[in-house]
Amino acid sequence: MSRPIEIVEVGPRDGLQNDPALMPTGVKLDFIGRLIDAGVRRMEVASFVNPKLVPAMADSDDIMARVPRDRGVKYIGLALNERGMRRALDTGCDEVNFVMVASQGFGKANQNATPEETAALFDRIAVLAHDEKVPVSVTISVAFGDPFDGEVPIDRVAILAGRAARAGAMEIALGDTIGVANPWDVRDRVAAVRAAAPDARLRLHFHNTRNTALANIYAAVEAGVDVIDASCGGIGGCPFAPKATGNVATEDVVYMLHRAGFDTGIDLDRMIETARWLEAEGLKHPIASMVAKAGGFPTRRAS
Amino acid sequence: MSRPIEIVEVGPRDGLQNDPALMPTGVKLDFIGRLIDAGVRRMEVASFVNPKLVPAMADSDDIMARVPRDRGVKYIGLALNERGMRRALDTGCDEVNFVMVASQGFGKANQNATPEETAALFDRIAVLAHDEKVPVSVTISVAFGDPFDGEVPIDRVAILAGRAARAGAMEIALGDTIGVANPWDVRDRVAAVRAAAPDARLRLHFHNTRNTALANIYAAVEAGVDVIDASCGGIGGCPFAPKATGNVATEDVVYMLHRAGFDTGIDLDRMIETARWLEAEGLKHPIASMVAKAGGFPTRRAS
Repeated sequence: MSRPIEIVEVGPRDGLQNDPALMPTGVKLDFIGRLIDAGVRRMEVASFVNPKLVPAMADSDDIMARVPRDRGVKYIGLALNERGMRRALDTGCDEVNFVMVASQGFGKANQNATPEETAALFDRIAVLAHDEKVPVSVTISVAFGDPFDGEVPIDRVAILAGRAARAGAMEIALGDTIGVANPWDVRDRVAAVRAAAPDARLRLHFHNTRNTALANIYAAVEAGVDVIDASCGGIGGCPFAPKATGNVATEDVVYMLHRAGFDTGIDLDRMIETARWLEAEGLKHPIASMVAKAGGFPTRRAS
Repeated sequence: MSRPIEIVEVGPRDGLQNDPALMPTGVKLDFIGRLIDAGVRRMEVASFVNPKLVPAMADSDDIMARVPRDRGVKYIGLALNERGMRRALDTGCDEVNFVMVASQGFGKANQNATPEETAALFDRIAVLAHDEKVPVSVTISVAFGDPFDGEVPIDRVAILAGRAARAGAMEIALGDTIGVANPWDVRDRVAAVRAAAPDARLRLHFHNTRNTALANIYAAVEAGVDVIDASCGGIGGCPFAPKATGNVATEDVVYMLHRAGFDTGIDLDRMIETARWLEAEGLKHPIASMVAKAGGFPTRRAS
């Protein structure tokens, strides 16, 4: 067993965007450098949205201008409209990620758009990226449940995935934005999305709000998914669940996968060090990672 | 899907035995009553070991004399030697649990016995319970990894399970005492134990030290396991990993299983209330549960 699983590190974008500590640009670049040292080769670092709405991402152009370009890392920028897509392309993002929303309630609250409107918007802006031969991916948010509407029909997720694929998304992610997925449902939704978009690569994005993230990742990997989002230190919550834990911690994911013999290309000890640095110096507040507290399997450290 | 999964609540014994707050007997009985109100029908409440070594369990005879006997609850007492077995039977435990250890290092440190010695001891004391027609179960500790010896051979776990079954254990539990199991390994070890002890019921006991407990439970349930240990509020650590989180929280397990349609007989909201009571009044220190913080799936609360 040495099947490779790609970890997409989302800490510098999804992780930091709602963090109460507004991290200065220089510290962000230090964070990004540490992640690269730990083996990360694909990460979200920028968000081209209205800086008044997301002040933590106001330095995204600057970040993209200063990240190291000689270390084989693919940098992902988030864009939710035409203007954002233009900025993402102009700053040299290696990939652009777009978000379709799977449910009305969250769509209205988060980006003031219905599922259909987000799909139609992607049709229009994906072509800008195609023109410049930059890959685009789509994350389907609240794909496992909506905090306002409750259950999200599996068919709607599949329909959105089909639309994303037909509009040229090279990868489709299912986002458990509020942390309500369960592993049985993960298996079912992965199968439905695969049937609707057989040629797109699948990526899964889980929050550990209710402790289920690693169970969901196990189910996803067993269902053949090879790309997993994770956030160093588990940073990044959801603005609609302010007290709850957010993204699953990269070091927790890497620990579980390595313990079972998978290959992520990440150095677990250095990722743990980075999470501890984040807590002590980068953010200066407690983080939700468990492996950063407990360490890996004891004898591996001893040896 | 309404397959029943039995939750064995271990908070009042395994949870409290290492807790820094020494809970008075009256508060323990309050805790036990709240757990019964939440739907628990099988729980560890007593430990018949040397009270000098485990002072938190010194009131076990008293607890057994005072627990309610008219609510259909099966009470489990722990016994590690002949004297303990005698006490467990004399106090009217409905079941007695014994611990075999799967690895030398932990066995030496925790109960000063080798795996073989614990198996031989069980042969001798199981007959005492058989004479009184009281069911006995065996937990195989460090069944997924040992903090001193590292990896624990799967064959050794299977051999111990076979010995437990031949000596009359009605149920065999695999204990991830230090929280190093991964779900792929769970599947393999469940299969090996089932082959070695085809007639024994299987129970799984996971710690969430490295965030993997629910993934392991998912793997166990998928492998056909119907009995899961959990501890209200996630209380109870391992004395060899003092800073780390211990048992998986009952409310987290129940949340995941109910969300997927399983039936545990437990009322999630009342279990969450009990965890919150434990934190605020029962122990007066923070606990590790995540669902007690985040709540269940939002719309279920709203409806």
